[in-house]
Amino acid sequence: MPPAPHAPVPGADPVRAARAGLCRLVEPTDPTAMLLLAALGPVAALEIASGRRPIAAAEHTGLVRAGAEAGYGPRQIDLRRALDRWAGRAAELHPAADLDAAARAGAWFAVPEDPDWPEALADLGLFQPIGLWGRGERRLLPFPAARSVAVVGSRDCSGYGRQVTLELAGALAARGWTVVSGGAYGIDQAAHSAALATGTGEPPTVSVMACGIDRLYPRGNEELLRCVEAAGLLLSEAAPGCTPSRYRFLQRNRIIAALSAGTVVVEARWRSGAQNTAHHADGLSRPVGAVPGSVHAGTSAGCHRLVREGSAVLVTDAEDVLELVQPLGTATTGTAATCAARERGSVVDGLSQPDRVLLDALPLRARSRPDRLVRVAGLSPREVLGGLRRLEERGLADGTGEGWRRRR
Amino acid sequence: MPPAPHAPVPGADPVRAARAGLCRLVEPTDPTAMLLLAALGPVAALEIASGRRPIAAAEHTGLVRAGAEAGYGPRQIDLRRALDRWAGRAAELHPAADLDAAARAGAWFAVPEDPDWPEALADLGLFQPIGLWGRGERRLLPFPAARSVAVVGSRDCSGYGRQVTLELAGALAARGWTVVSGGAYGIDQAAHSAALATGTGEPPTVSVMACGIDRLYPRGNEELLRCVEAAGLLLSEAAPGCTPSRYRFLQRNRIIAALSAGTVVVEARWRSGAQNTAHHADGLSRPVGAVPGSVHAGTSAGCHRLVREGSAVLVTDAEDVLELVQPLGTATTGTAATCAARERGSVVDGLSQPDRVLLDALPLRARSRPDRLVRVAGLSPREVLGGLRRLEERGLADGTGEGWRRRR
Repeated sequence: MPPAPHAPVPGADPVRAARAGLCRLVEPTDPTAMLLLAALGPVAALEIASGRRPIAAAEHTGLVRAGAEAGYGPRQIDLRRALDRWAGRAAELHPAADLDAAARAGAWFAVPEDPDWPEALADLGLFQPIGLWGRGERRLLPFPAARSVAVVGSRDCSGYGRQVTLELAGALAARGWTVVSGGAYGIDQAAHSAALATGTGEPPTVSVMACGIDRLYPRGNEELLRCVEAAGLLLSEAAPGCTPSRYRFLQRNRIIAALSAGTVVVEARWRSGAQNTAHHADGLSRPVGAVPGSVHAGTSAGCHRLVREGSAVLVTDAEDVLELVQPLGTATTGTAATCAARERGSVVDGLSQPDRVLLDALPLRARSRPDRLVRVAGLSPREVLGGLRRLEERGLADGTGEGWRRRR
Repeated sequence: MPPAPHAPVPGADPVRAARAGLCRLVEPTDPTAMLLLAALGPVAALEIASGRRPIAAAEHTGLVRAGAEAGYGPRQIDLRRALDRWAGRAAELHPAADLDAAARAGAWFAVPEDPDWPEALADLGLFQPIGLWGRGERRLLPFPAARSVAVVGSRDCSGYGRQVTLELAGALAARGWTVVSGGAYGIDQAAHSAALATGTGEPPTVSVMACGIDRLYPRGNEELLRCVEAAGLLLSEAAPGCTPSRYRFLQRNRIIAALSAGTVVVEARWRSGAQNTAHHADGLSRPVGAVPGSVHAGTSAGCHRLVREGSAVLVTDAEDVLELVQPLGTATTGTAATCAARERGSVVDGLSQPDRVLLDALPLRARSRPDRLVRVAGLSPREVLGGLRRLEERGLADGTGEGWRRRR
């Protein structure tokens, strides 16, 4: 069977091979590399970045122009220094071998030139991933960010954070939303687990990892990540074999933010990747939600900080999250129903102010005559008599020959 | 000893007696009564409201003009209906006796004409209290709202809410702030208790009650309220003998808001007086803070709602509250110190991006040579060697002949 157009033969495509090489060569979001790529395309960018040939004068002009468009001055694009930086890895560059090895391991490599490249990633502009290594059914790749929510948080979460994540991610997944997270311990783990358990979306869950796609990291989540692969997607911009680093974790967060309509931080410490995630989402004009918790819990301090600083909206349940990520007016009836349920519960709704005063004045046990209610409530006889009738109609008061009392 | 000018002989003053009578006759914030008072002054207002004489044509013109200034059309000022409403109580009006009884019970009655009337109450405009019945040392009455915080919340609070209130109100009172609350069970009780225990302000705490000043309601707080009276103030706009009603509780909240630089809601259910308190504070341009809690706790649902709806700022401790109630730049050094302490804690602060990448690449146990770090980190040899030196200076890396590793 010939390969489908969206899954070309690995290595057969110079653009794909060049992007695979660049993935290996440079750290994510390296500005000089990204400008080379934007100005000259992947093949020329790799030739120059790997030191196989010097940059031509016309190419350099294009690079400076691309820099100016992105807000970088000519002095900020220090290509000589960048080449120094990349030289160590350039010697070990075998993109065709990387692609072959990935294919043997059941992984694929998607590039922005592919028709199934997720559209939402274009919102990252210059910092769109060079390519994405993936595992799982490739047909799921173009899942819409408009129906995805990122659920993220601390690795060292509390039992509370785990429970809230299970509820939140479970409810969102059950409604067909794709839950995007980072595959880590703690909140990420709970988010993926809940989505796998209840998810009806295609895919139910996506894990964007900071290490090479051939690694299932952390080890304790290996089984979970295999389940994510079986039902959804594992994605990474890092070349196969790459280890996760703090820097890559932080850069990875921009992809999680871009692939989702909004990001929910369930638990985060005062200093944490949550601030970084919120920053990425904000830069993408994607809303951020944060779950509150005890003021004594260090695991919620980062969430409270996000809300205080105006970087996130406080969310308490899936309804709040849907309100956040769905444009106004597109919310499902579930949201309206929940609001109605919340609004219920007070018997005084719809009562006029004098009728509320009268209701307050009605005794619960003994009975009170209207003339006494006139004095106690400070209302006119007409207001008392009319009010008693209205309260009776609503089942809030009952009267006998001995007087009136409030009905519970 | 002759009475001090701020504590005139009860009953000797027609203005004071008229206001005492109006307190008894009308419910708090009755618009028609408030307009009569604003237009004609207390003596004439009481004569007309109690039905002792009809309103004169010129007086009626003044009433309509006062209404127009306050945004009420002539049709909204239905004096005839109001007189009907007040007639039941007018028959039992004995302001001189009320003032005498209050004085015998150790209470006093302050009016806006008194020099020690709290200035901040003027912010209530038309709905300034007609007068305030008080217990406690009268010299404490003109306490400044600028150094007061209202700490309020549910009667049926959780253990968490009680604990947070004790910490928050205790810390604020220890810094000399007056804690204003409502004397109820739950959060109010904890707020008063903490302020009495640690307070250094004058007064440490003030309880604004919804019932007559002769009652210590609820009964279970009788001892606490006696302590508030001994160290601070009990205040009420309700005439002696009045019972608390839901309507009076809600109106009382406006006085709590007006007497404070800001209001903190520690715990509140979805439907609760907290929304009302926030509304009052907002109308007075006073900031509102709300303490977060578990999303599973009904006792925090109202706080989360206030934050979500933008009616309150999320606050987690006394520092957050001070930031809320103190104008920018007037915060004590304590706030700055706490921020500094919060900001500490990350070793990567002040490191350049390449140095952060290098730090990530350093192994914790085994040692790595610079040439290997060049490949792993994707940095130039110059960046690696310079970076290792900088990390070593900061105590973040140590190198031997066998290579480099990260220091914890």
